[in-house]
Amino acid sequence: MTSPTFQYPAGSAAFPHRGLVGIAGLAPHEIMFLLDEAEQWVQLNRHAQKHRNLLAGLTIINAFFENSTRTLLSFEIAGKRLGADVVNMHAAQSSVKKGETLIDTAMTLNAMHADAIVIRHGSSGAVRLIAGKVDCPVLNAGDGQHEHPTQALLDALTIRHAKRAFNGLTVTICGDILHSRVARSNILCLTSLGADVRVCAPPALMPEAIEAMNVTPFHDFDAALAGADVVMMLRLQLERMQGQFIPSPREYRHLYGLTLDRLERAAPDALVMHPGPMNRGVEIDSNVADLVGRSLITRQVEMGVAIRMACLDVLTRKARGLEGWA
Amino acid sequence: MTSPTFQYPAGSAAFPHRGLVGIAGLAPHEIMFLLDEAEQWVQLNRHAQKHRNLLAGLTIINAFFENSTRTLLSFEIAGKRLGADVVNMHAAQSSVKKGETLIDTAMTLNAMHADAIVIRHGSSGAVRLIAGKVDCPVLNAGDGQHEHPTQALLDALTIRHAKRAFNGLTVTICGDILHSRVARSNILCLTSLGADVRVCAPPALMPEAIEAMNVTPFHDFDAALAGADVVMMLRLQLERMQGQFIPSPREYRHLYGLTLDRLERAAPDALVMHPGPMNRGVEIDSNVADLVGRSLITRQVEMGVAIRMACLDVLTRKARGLEGWA
Amino acid sequence: MTSPTFQYPAGSAAFPHRGLVGIAGLAPHEIMFLLDEAEQWVQLNRHAQKHRNLLAGLTIINAFFENSTRTLLSFEIAGKRLGADVVNMHAAQSSVKKGETLIDTAMTLNAMHADAIVIRHGSSGAVRLIAGKVDCPVLNAGDGQHEHPTQALLDALTIRHAKRAFNGLTVTICGDILHSRVARSNILCLTSLGADVRVCAPPALMPEAIEAMNVTPFHDFDAALAGADVVMMLRLQLERMQGQFIPSPREYRHLYGLTLDRLERAAPDALVMHPGPMNRGVEIDSNVADLVGRSLITRQVEMGVAIRMACLDVLTRKARGLEGWA
Repeated sequence: MTSPTFQYPAGSAAFPHRGLVGIAGLAPHEIMFLLDEAEQWVQLNRHAQKHRNLLAGLTIINAFFENSTRTLLSFEIAGKRLGADVVNMHAAQSSVKKGETLIDTAMTLNAMHADAIVIRHGSSGAVRLIAGKVDCPVLNAGDGQHEHPTQALLDALTIRHAKRAFNGLTVTICGDILHSRVARSNILCLTSLGADVRVCAPPALMPEAIEAMNVTPFHDFDAALAGADVVMMLRLQLERMQGQFIPSPREYRHLYGLTLDRLERAAPDALVMHPGPMNRGVEIDSNVADLVGRSLITRQVEMGVAIRMACLDVLTRKARGLEGWA
Repeated sequence: MTSPTFQYPAGSAAFPHRGLVGIAGLAPHEIMFLLDEAEQWVQLNRHAQKHRNLLAGLTIINAFFENSTRTLLSFEIAGKRLGADVVNMHAAQSSVKKGETLIDTAMTLNAMHADAIVIRHGSSGAVRLIAGKVDCPVLNAGDGQHEHPTQALLDALTIRHAKRAFNGLTVTICGDILHSRVARSNILCLTSLGADVRVCAPPALMPEAIEAMNVTPFHDFDAALAGADVVMMLRLQLERMQGQFIPSPREYRHLYGLTLDRLERAAPDALVMHPGPMNRGVEIDSNVADLVGRSLITRQVEMGVAIRMACLDVLTRKARGLEGWA
Repeated sequence: MTSPTFQYPAGSAAFPHRGLVGIAGLAPHEIMFLLDEAEQWVQLNRHAQKHRNLLAGLTIINAFFENSTRTLLSFEIAGKRLGADVVNMHAAQSSVKKGETLIDTAMTLNAMHADAIVIRHGSSGAVRLIAGKVDCPVLNAGDGQHEHPTQALLDALTIRHAKRAFNGLTVTICGDILHSRVARSNILCLTSLGADVRVCAPPALMPEAIEAMNVTPFHDFDAALAGADVVMMLRLQLERMQGQFIPSPREYRHLYGLTLDRLERAAPDALVMHPGPMNRGVEIDSNVADLVGRSLITRQVEMGVAIRMACLDVLTRKARGLEGWA
């Protein structure tokens, strides 16, 4: 277990943000504060008795305008383990279908006196829009191609559990960098924490001027892997496989799939990550995904619940009147 | 805050009904009793700690045969804040699709020993049918074109917070009066409480002999608005916009949309209400919906949770063995 | 109420199984142990205050890959009444749609530190597959044409409440024996407990060599009913009614529907059961389904919640560190 890297400012100065719209705008020590706060939940979650009534009496609304299994479950479990009253709003049943504006939906959730709203939405910027209209903290559970901050935080926590320090660490992120909010949040988070980040994608899936994000771009996966300490594979969305961006899943695997052979180009103890759900045999081979001691994929899921508990705890401290947070 | 208007009879004499199928059949002082009971929940909900274990140990089933966001969320939050075990049954996954009869579904929920069943159903009368078959209180969350009693109660509570008294108050309800359970329950509730109610609709959307409900019908919205204290706009259902009932949304707005200009025909401090979700630019303009100090639309949502908490509390008192209710 | 039939071994020796994948593999006294454990929950559920914090702090995930109303509601209510943090994963929103393998989905649920996973899946064997991959108890809520063990247990509990002993009892199960996991689990359970089981189906819906399961097969429903103490009707799946297996629902009713006339061939006080949802007028007539004192259909639903509470309690005792179970 990694101990806190330094003494944080007291109270809300440790994390002076109303919500968590993205990693952008967070100082490195604020990110570390959330990681350190999550450690207690990593421990608690490993016990049978894994409930603490920290958020008892508070109402958390998970408003998911895009379908999701793992992120919704993770947030729902996080909220319930902390004792909050948790309710889910699914897009499929939502008034959005009835032509209601996003802001009206947000105002409705707000009027029910939610103490935190967790939002997943298909449009970049939708979460920030809502955050500006409601009275409570808003947590971004993924918005369009913008950010997915809790994914980046759980990835950082997973890496820290395995590697201890981010300085001097080389992380290669490979896949559809152009459309990936996971990539974007991870780039912001890992560069902020001091890691060297390489991104690798076919030319059609690489953003222009990505160097401005302090990463090194590659089109050749073998070169991107050379000596890497962590290899983070992105999910290839099915809709990108239809020929507009890549010729075929088979061709994609040939050039950008993580195989056991290819993994040998990375550092000897290189770790493998994937945000899930995986397309086994496309972006990652099964014998890599299941590599004991090297694949951190299920560990990422575990850290996800802990990170979300930390975020919900920290962001509701003001409402709960904790000393120094009110 | 409005204080109780008079001393209620003790115990269940204050509300001697097993469930809440509609506003029809409620005496004025029974409606007032529910409004007065709701005040404590309005207050509680404004605190961060907004949970009271009043219904701990009870099981509430929200059986929604029609999709709904706000009403389901509102009932779910109400039940959870009162400490009940709350479960939702969604029609989309329900045995109804498998050809089960409505009564068999109701008997199934009953056999699981629900302590309250909240029902939304597309058919008028479905809720009363179920209420007659089960052992626990049934709450109508909207059935066909029949009633939506908690909507009327929350609207009355919202009006009372702003206007104090119903006597001498002129309320204009405008929209699809013919098909609207919201209109129907509001007419019953507001006339019962002593308000003067005007209803306004295009001829094709006005019920025949509506005068029998003690309201004044109008086809001319300007005339209906003259001097009104409260203007309650109804949602125009998309399926009514297709030409059978009205020529086009644009035409509808021209004749029956609430614009800022038109609102000036009402009383100087006239209040604006809408049950949501709104079709902005159709039945209500954005600058009216967002009119600070005049639009009560988000306040209605807030009152909704409080009213549902009051109804769940009152209707389960018998099962909980409260003195005078058993 | 039936009292325990004998003294069970202490601690986990009474039920030395990690999960509940099927009735197959359970000893008769292990089945009786679960039935006896359920009695306390039958009693509790009949009170208004029907919550016990036995599983407080534990997380139960209901992972339903097939739609279901009653089984999901029943498990959800069971878990909540025992104080667990309960979350549902619906297939319609699941990553399964995104091409994720079943095992990856299971590993994800496991990594979130579920303390019990309840699974319903369309493929026979899917539950056993998952049970072998996760750390916590897995409960089968129905998998393909394999087993539905809690249905068999609740049916046995229902019969025991009405008949006391299984020895010497003749139970006739009629319907689509070939495809029915309910029939399969009931045959295993009831023969294990000592009942004489007859199965009746049209030739196309009867498994070959069914005699190997210690039942007597019939194609003639009248003969199968003669003197039966319990008649258990199976739901006719709509997809079987399309002519491939049976000519028409009407023809089916004529040959295999339980009518009041036909019921007279059974024992004078013969009881009627159906797992629901019923096709009234197809496999069972309404005047049979509603026969007071003879139809146990809603009683089965009631017993279902109690049985599931017992299974969740017993299977989590090891994790909760109960003496003799750790």
